Amino acid sequence: MLIRRLAVIGVGLIGGSLARALRDAGEVGEVVGCGRGRENLERAVALGVIDRFTHDIGEAVEGADMVFLSLPLGAMAAAFLAMRGHLAQDAVITDGGSSKASVVQACRDAFGTIPASFVPGHPIAGTENSGVEASFATLYHGRRTILTPTEATSAEALRRVESMWRLCGAEVTRMSVEHHDEVLAATSHLPHMLAFGLVDTLAQMKENDEIFRYAAGGFRDFTRIASSNPVMWRDICVANSVALGEVMDRYIREMQALAETIKAEDGERLLRIFGRAKAARDRYVDGIDESASTE
Amino acid sequence: MLIRRLAVIGVGLIGGSLARALRDAGEVGEVVGCGRGRENLERAVALGVIDRFTHDIGEAVEGADMVFLSLPLGAMAAAFLAMRGHLAQDAVITDGGSSKASVVQACRDAFGTIPASFVPGHPIAGTENSGVEASFATLYHGRRTILTPTEATSAEALRRVESMWRLCGAEVTRMSVEHHDEVLAATSHLPHMLAFGLVDTLAQMKENDEIFRYAAGGFRDFTRIASSNPVMWRDICVANSVALGEVMDRYIREMQALAETIKAEDGERLLRIFGRAKAARDRYVDGIDESASTE
Repeated sequence: MLIRRLAVIGVGLIGGSLARALRDAGEVGEVVGCGRGRENLERAVALGVIDRFTHDIGEAVEGADMVFLSLPLGAMAAAFLAMRGHLAQDAVITDGGSSKASVVQACRDAFGTIPASFVPGHPIAGTENSGVEASFATLYHGRRTILTPTEATSAEALRRVESMWRLCGAEVTRMSVEHHDEVLAATSHLPHMLAFGLVDTLAQMKENDEIFRYAAGGFRDFTRIASSNPVMWRDICVANSVALGEVMDRYIREMQALAETIKAEDGERLLRIFGRAKAARDRYVDGIDESASTE
Repeated sequence: MLIRRLAVIGVGLIGGSLARALRDAGEVGEVVGCGRGRENLERAVALGVIDRFTHDIGEAVEGADMVFLSLPLGAMAAAFLAMRGHLAQDAVITDGGSSKASVVQACRDAFGTIPASFVPGHPIAGTENSGVEASFATLYHGRRTILTPTEATSAEALRRVESMWRLCGAEVTRMSVEHHDEVLAATSHLPHMLAFGLVDTLAQMKENDEIFRYAAGGFRDFTRIASSNPVMWRDICVANSVALGEVMDRYIREMQALAETIKAEDGERLLRIFGRAKAARDRYVDGIDESASTE
């Protein structure tokens, strides 16, 4: 059994699915849940996702050999502070935050130095639903989990966290903290900003009622993303402000050039831009589809 | 029977689906197809979408009491010129172009003045497929068709085109040419530009292979739109350059403000922007979903 006692700090879709997957694999002895909402935690016990719960982080991590933080980014700093002095000798700490530099910083701030037992991580998985009710054992099946070990991270801690994610069916890759934040800014955070920006632009136009009425099906899919949790996205933007700010500047310059080309009615240049985008999209995304289907 | 002889100039998804719907309704006597590709036109005859075909527009419109132009926007001007002197006395002309000012201008240029028999139109419908093979009789069922009559358009021509679209199951609305182009720029053309711009931005980043590899499922849906036909979008951008240029400037200003707010890590303001976008999206788009399901 890989894990004797797992402490899940934040028992929602991400933390609940991890616990379920490890239980299904028979690789966890006891699961202790921690969170603020009593109802959600009671439901987690009833569903068999956790064995018991507490609202106190220090109490939750006591005796645990694996601590998983699945909290909003804005809540990480307080969680690290709360677990100080309560961790077991052999405890490994990891997390599921979608921005890594800010979590590493919060950990350093709490402990004075980054503990060797801390393995920053990010499972690239999720659904539109949240809460423990939405969790399921196969959420991480065939999905990527990125681990971003720091210079302080011990090989043993890294090995244990890698094993944990592989038991959940995830494909584990490693990258630096900085590189993770750049890649996620481009592929996840920027697309969300486009959607928020589009909907907000249209909402501010006069006759916006009519504009939304004529929005076709494609537009609706496109803006579904804009109904994501505002608090979560506020936290992500603040946590990853540097990498996201850079890629947004890049994107704005691209859109400015495109707007100028449209106003100049430069058909040849438009054809080059659209052809390049189509080729890139078809080449990479279809390539990914194919490799996924043969895996 | 509403239409004695229908001339479909451009027998693809849009033109083919109109012909099929009118045949199913028993409201068209003969359908004459016109286009450049012999193979597509032979297929259209074999499928029973058209009765006969010609590659000559003048010949195609002879004796037709309804002429439907379903051509790329860039091909409209030549089509109007080619039909001059061949139209029947009672011929009504309409089109399916997704930008209206440019089509009206092309018509005025060809005829010297806008004919009373011309009813500019735009069915808001389509699929990801093209060509007559992709056409089907119910494409316009429950979809909107916008008609943008000019000052010259006769009430009788307008009435006939409205009847035609209603027979296809479409909900017909009228608006001015300028207003149509503004609404479509915001709800269709701008979202496509975002997608092209996003994919092109990422394709130009170093290590773009890796970036596309980590693109999650939501991103893939988001950029599917960027694999749309580059020639069609070049034509749309050139045809609707004024309205699209304006809404792009508005969007770029919104994104600049958002980028500055992210760099300043102004969490409260981010929450306001994201909350406003979510509320607008939920209010309007879900409102549309509900009304659609009760219609």
